[in-house]
Amino acid sequence: MLDLWYTENWSKNTKFSIKIKEQLHSEQSEFQKIDFFISEEYGRFFTLDGLVMVTEKDEFIYHEMITHVPMATNPNIKKVLVIGGGDGGTVRELTRYNHIEKIDMVEIDERVVKLSQKYLPFTADKLTDSRVTLFFQDGLKFVDECLDESYDLILVDSTDPISVGEGLFTTEFYQNCFRILSKDGILVNQHESPYFEHFAKEMKKAHDKLKNIFPIAKVYQFHQPTYASGHWLFGFASKKLDPITDQKKEIWESFNLKTKYYNSDIHCGAFALPNYVKEKLEK
Amino acid sequence: MLDLWYTENWSKNTKFSIKIKEQLHSEQSEFQKIDFFISEEYGRFFTLDGLVMVTEKDEFIYHEMITHVPMATNPNIKKVLVIGGGDGGTVRELTRYNHIEKIDMVEIDERVVKLSQKYLPFTADKLTDSRVTLFFQDGLKFVDECLDESYDLILVDSTDPISVGEGLFTTEFYQNCFRILSKDGILVNQHESPYFEHFAKEMKKAHDKLKNIFPIAKVYQFHQPTYASGHWLFGFASKKLDPITDQKKEIWESFNLKTKYYNSDIHCGAFALPNYVKEKLEK
Repeated sequence: MLDLWYTENWSKNTKFSIKIKEQLHSEQSEFQKIDFFISEEYGRFFTLDGLVMVTEKDEFIYHEMITHVPMATNPNIKKVLVIGGGDGGTVRELTRYNHIEKIDMVEIDERVVKLSQKYLPFTADKLTDSRVTLFFQDGLKFVDECLDESYDLILVDSTDPISVGEGLFTTEFYQNCFRILSKDGILVNQHESPYFEHFAKEMKKAHDKLKNIFPIAKVYQFHQPTYASGHWLFGFASKKLDPITDQKKEIWESFNLKTKYYNSDIHCGAFALPNYVKEKLEK
Repeated sequence: MLDLWYTENWSKNTKFSIKIKEQLHSEQSEFQKIDFFISEEYGRFFTLDGLVMVTEKDEFIYHEMITHVPMATNPNIKKVLVIGGGDGGTVRELTRYNHIEKIDMVEIDERVVKLSQKYLPFTADKLTDSRVTLFFQDGLKFVDECLDESYDLILVDSTDPISVGEGLFTTEFYQNCFRILSKDGILVNQHESPYFEHFAKEMKKAHDKLKNIFPIAKVYQFHQPTYASGHWLFGFASKKLDPITDQKKEIWESFNLKTKYYNSDIHCGAFALPNYVKEKLEK
């Protein structure tokens, strides 16, 4: 019997391994190494440059938490920009809102989208929704060339700043996001993790930049067991709306969306950070 | 250079590995296999039957969350029973409250205590506090022989029900806990994890038993990266007090305890469970 394991270095001294049945695909695109696997425990999953991005078992956690927290803060969001997110999971969650009119998705690596459509239909199958437009280009350049107040919501569903996602963690990028957001605009971004030092450093840097640009810049957490330490974060930055005091619980619940992780209590609970995380963010 | 790794099977198809510098000690006690290690990333850590119990890096999370949630719900707690917890971390957190008068700790395996005192002074050094009495005996038998209303708080800091901790997950044990608790009494217990199926099964069983015995039986979560999936739970069962509506925020904060994980916001936030966890608990 084949004893095949995918192993990821969560830190120099920590490894996480998944037993796999089969490697479905492997290629080096123009931007990164892309691999798809099948496993018993996690179903299908894919990695970029040797880091798990999406598993069939738990992708719902990440995709619900990046989407529904801002959507329940401002249920009037109509125009959305997704940066990254080539697997389609974030777009899938957005398309569940009938009142969203436009979803532009800017993914630098067309291969991630094409391969996700082939191997991960459970995340990618809403990329063909009529409201979705795909742009295969650099997100940094896209926001730079964008008109003022073009979007109500920007979701940055990126890799870590050490790889192709680097530009999406810069002051220049965040400033352009601010400019192209409407007056109630919200930016939610992949915000790394507090537990291992190399991720915590990037978490702190992102937060410092965001709070210098946006009047409201908070961080919220979720349990994502297939990411390093299982303790992962999103940033919530906005021009005006506060995710706690402006939460529209009743309106969101009236949408009747069935979710597996997100609910109105977690909406608030996720912003309750441990002291050690707050200290790393603020010091 | 020595390339030595401690590896734990989080599930049949998932492994978690820590690079270690040195194995400090290994023995088979009357009850279980006990091992102590030194690592760069996690400092000193120890395992029972091949499962991480305590690491120097993150033990504060578990020990703060098991202790301060009930103490902030009833700041008048004076008599405490700890079952298990041989490393001493739970007792250490309890001794920080000057108004606690009595701490009885019942640990079945004296070797865990003796070895923790030798190798883990950072958790064990308050076991000599004058309010602490150590009983090296079976927790199940201890509570059975105990007088009614002997304690205000019981903390069950046990291993999983698949090993020596099995008796501490039985209806008989919970019934005796109820009987020996005072009228405001609270029981907090190690409550397994929702993510991997074998832990989730035990989580569900424990919750079913507790809610049949205690008028209030809730579950709260925390991020413990060195436990399987990083998503771990405590049960909060009580005769009268609700952890959310009876939280004594101001009183607890007036104690001025410096904590690294727990705070008054997390006290509530931790009870906001994901939908998939609630469904597994209730189904």
